[in-house]
Amino acid sequence: MAVDYVKKTMKEISLFIDKVAEKLSDEQVERFVETLVDAYRRGAKVLVMGAGRSGLVGRAFAMRLMHLGFNVYVLGETITPSIGEGDIVVAISGSGRTQLIVTAAEAAKKVKAKIVAITSYPDSPLGRLADIVVEIPGRTKTAPDIDYFARQILGIHEPLAPLGTLFEDTALAFLDGVVVELMHRLGKNESDLRAKHANIEF
Amino acid sequence: MAVDYVKKTMKEISLFIDKVAEKLSDEQVERFVETLVDAYRRGAKVLVMGAGRSGLVGRAFAMRLMHLGFNVYVLGETITPSIGEGDIVVAISGSGRTQLIVTAAEAAKKVKAKIVAITSYPDSPLGRLADIVVEIPGRTKTAPDIDYFARQILGIHEPLAPLGTLFEDTALAFLDGVVVELMHRLGKNESDLRAKHANIEF
Amino acid sequence: MAVDYVKKTMKEISLFIDKVAEKLSDEQVERFVETLVDAYRRGAKVLVMGAGRSGLVGRAFAMRLMHLGFNVYVLGETITPSIGEGDIVVAISGSGRTQLIVTAAEAAKKVKAKIVAITSYPDSPLGRLADIVVEIPGRTKTAPDIDYFARQILGIHEPLAPLGTLFEDTALAFLDGVVVELMHRLGKNESDLRAKHANIEF
Amino acid sequence: MAVDYVKKTMKEISLFIDKVAEKLSDEQVERFVETLVDAYRRGAKVLVMGAGRSGLVGRAFAMRLMHLGFNVYVLGETITPSIGEGDIVVAISGSGRTQLIVTAAEAAKKVKAKIVAITSYPDSPLGRLADIVVEIPGRTKTAPDIDYFARQILGIHEPLAPLGTLFEDTALAFLDGVVVELMHRLGKNESDLRAKHANIEF
Repeated sequence: MAVDYVKKTMKEISLFIDKVAEKLSDEQVERFVETLVDAYRRGAKVLVMGAGRSGLVGRAFAMRLMHLGFNVYVLGETITPSIGEGDIVVAISGSGRTQLIVTAAEAAKKVKAKIVAITSYPDSPLGRLADIVVEIPGRTKTAPDIDYFARQILGIHEPLAPLGTLFEDTALAFLDGVVVELMHRLGKNESDLRAKHANIEF
Repeated sequence: MAVDYVKKTMKEISLFIDKVAEKLSDEQVERFVETLVDAYRRGAKVLVMGAGRSGLVGRAFAMRLMHLGFNVYVLGETITPSIGEGDIVVAISGSGRTQLIVTAAEAAKKVKAKIVAITSYPDSPLGRLADIVVEIPGRTKTAPDIDYFARQILGIHEPLAPLGTLFEDTALAFLDGVVVELMHRLGKNESDLRAKHANIEF
Repeated sequence: MAVDYVKKTMKEISLFIDKVAEKLSDEQVERFVETLVDAYRRGAKVLVMGAGRSGLVGRAFAMRLMHLGFNVYVLGETITPSIGEGDIVVAISGSGRTQLIVTAAEAAKKVKAKIVAITSYPDSPLGRLADIVVEIPGRTKTAPDIDYFARQILGIHEPLAPLGTLFEDTALAFLDGVVVELMHRLGKNESDLRAKHANIEF
Repeated sequence: MAVDYVKKTMKEISLFIDKVAEKLSDEQVERFVETLVDAYRRGAKVLVMGAGRSGLVGRAFAMRLMHLGFNVYVLGETITPSIGEGDIVVAISGSGRTQLIVTAAEAAKKVKAKIVAITSYPDSPLGRLADIVVEIPGRTKTAPDIDYFARQILGIHEPLAPLGTLFEDTALAFLDGVVVELMHRLGKNESDLRAKHANIEF
């Protein structure tokens, strides 16, 4: 049928998210969530960074952290202030090799911020410099011919979704899961979030 | 276990995407895809717009359209030009009521662009003014107490994911499915996309 | 000589800024500055908005307000929260007719924010709905054939700088003047600003 | 009088722009303008980059290049594609040391793009790697205690305008001068620009 690829791809993404949920390291996720809860309690800054579509996923997460009452900023936006010791950087990069993100994370490390890497490659430059790594499987745009997580997870030769799609969509679902976890740990409900949600929105 | 909400939410999002894939209207999706293929062949402009997290989903789609060789722009970014007759607007709003998006879509209609609405509410202001509607179920942040698609689909009283999360994540997976459909119809493979992917990226 | 237009245009912009500095209404500027000082002291939110190049001027101002310690946001960016009574909107539009800015300012008025309009036309839709207007002369891109402030001020038939350039560049210089005024009233020096300036910057 | 600092700062900025117009190197500006004219004729890509307020100035310039019909992009925005040999990078940094801009310019050099640096420091890392430097005097936020151009130009001990303000506002006026120069060389008038100006604008 005409739009078969639309549906097959959605089902591939859906399956991938489901399988990654099972494969996640509880310990990695717990360290990430605890770090965020601690930042919230201390009023520390959380700076989110990512390039391209990973940057958009980061912004979607940052918006929810704002709804939760976090002191959160996005690298590259207008009102992002200086950060320093005690602040948290959440850097998102499937390959862990995106040049400007690695450079920015190195700069953040120099000023003693704590770095969390959301990446498929714990052994990448970003992964190695991070204090906390959360491993989200996904093939990446820069590694088309190596052993794909995707292939292992989906049991197929080649995913339909191109480039970093599986990583990006799964990272979004994962971070939305972290938002729900934070809601419960911080005792926030949907009305609390709605109260902070932009009422003049673009 | 400690991070249960993370995993449960990921599985909820995964299930939601899977169910929506089955519920999509083939006819609506086909009209949307054909409109995009036609815009590609004519070199017409495609202007993507959405507020908040829906805007981020729109940007993720716009980036892939650029990788595919489309003449695509995002409302609110620096180099977005004038549009007119024959151009396409893709407006994303779960509620179909986001004020600035409705205002922008009305302005686009006045200059005779063709409007595609990605929304949960075909009967909303955005849905009614659109030439093509693709209905993506999802509860929305502005309609917390009405009959939720989410409830019907997930068979649960109340989803874990707050506000527009289910719409947004599903819209992303849907639009990523449209990208794969377009790849096949336009005869593009992953290498074609990679060639256009920003090599200096932020 | 080869690059004469570059220099002539710079001198035109320079002269325009100088003349506008003399023409500014002390009362309008004082009300604007007092409103900002009051917002600072109360920790009220300041939401800056503008379309196109006026929006970029607004962001340049917002960045300095952040350096000064304001609770400032930009419409359309990721972490912009809801606003309400007691909050301040600074809307920048030469013509005072930019559709989405007028719509956004109306929405801000409904939630009882105080609206400051930076515009060439106090009698425009934006000017009329504002609580405070600061009139910055300038021809505007939407009014090419009416009585130009520019002509009066520069004493020339037609400025070199196209469209809204004179308004935009003068608005930037004006708002940078407001920053210096605020530094003195709030007792801040350059080191205070530098301390908040992003240290990981893009 | 109450708002004295506003007016004095505007006059300082005005004077600075005027003096820089006289100090500009005709040869540097001519090389920059010719490079742009050549890029326009070849349909080459022009990628504009800058951090913080310099990035906003770059965007204001990019918007006008779009109005002029250039194939122009901004680093960090959604639809920015890959660049390569024959493409032009315009990098704006007062100090010439902004880390992510230097890193991005190095990456651009590797893919054989031609680099134009708009900076106060030709001998900075950015200046040294650039193919063309346009020197715009200005004190910079990172060099508060060295020999200021500002002091020399304004003949005063310390300018009122903080941090990079004088560089940024002067760079904007300079680039707006380049726009007028390009209008004349490319035979474009204000109506041509208006025709491309976004008609749905945010």
